[in-house]
Amino acid sequence: MSPADQPLADPTLEADVFARGCHSRDVLLDVTGRWGTLALAALAEGAYRFGALRRRVDGVSERMLAQTLQQLERDGLVHREVRETLPPHVEYSLTPLGRDIAERLTGLIVLLESRMPDIRAAQTRYDAR
Amino acid sequence: MSPADQPLADPTLEADVFARGCHSRDVLLDVTGRWGTLALAALAEGAYRFGALRRRVDGVSERMLAQTLQQLERDGLVHREVRETLPPHVEYSLTPLGRDIAERLTGLIVLLESRMPDIRAAQTRYDAR
Repeated sequence: MSPADQPLADPTLEADVFARGCHSRDVLLDVTGRWGTLALAALAEGAYRFGALRRRVDGVSERMLAQTLQQLERDGLVHREVRETLPPHVEYSLTPLGRDIAERLTGLIVLLESRMPDIRAAQTRYDAR
Repeated sequence: MSPADQPLADPTLEADVFARGCHSRDVLLDVTGRWGTLALAALAEGAYRFGALRRRVDGVSERMLAQTLQQLERDGLVHREVRETLPPHVEYSLTPLGRDIAERLTGLIVLLESRMPDIRAAQTRYDAR
């Protein structure tokens, strides 16, 4: 039996991010980690080459972006394709599941950006206490 | 002029989480950080005392949970209330804005938990390459 054919989990056990041993918590960390959210939200805009994605996700190091993309590819959320151009280049895009997840993150980002005046006001009040 | 009355940001400048200097990125990190997501999702179930919340967010240390709640309180997402019981205890709950944000995170978590079989299959394929 090849690894891909193995039963992956007891289907009677539901995924629970609150349980520290549950794999779903690791995946939640991949998609919400420091760079995961921004990488997925950027790729929701369309496919990116590595360098362009790194410019879009302002401030990420080459190493951290590579590691983030590798985790997201392993989770089946990001598709990595080598284009046989001259010179060849690598393009990253979202899988259908990646798009579903990125959509939720984009919704969160839009909400958060639109509420920044309230959040900044709360921070100012807190810091003045 | 008290800090709370200060103009908080140039209203012509929109928040942009992709810009490394934007405050919205810090807030995104608070709500998506290692424990922020789980704390908000737990509080979406209802108010919690500190100890009960710590048991719910399985695996978080006392120090990390306290720090996470403090950040979320500062952002205006979590309300901290000292109940004058005997002995007094502290209760944490979501503010209206915290509820809006937690709702997005809960949606993400539900999606992610339901797609774990696909994600685990992708991980197995990746690891077998």
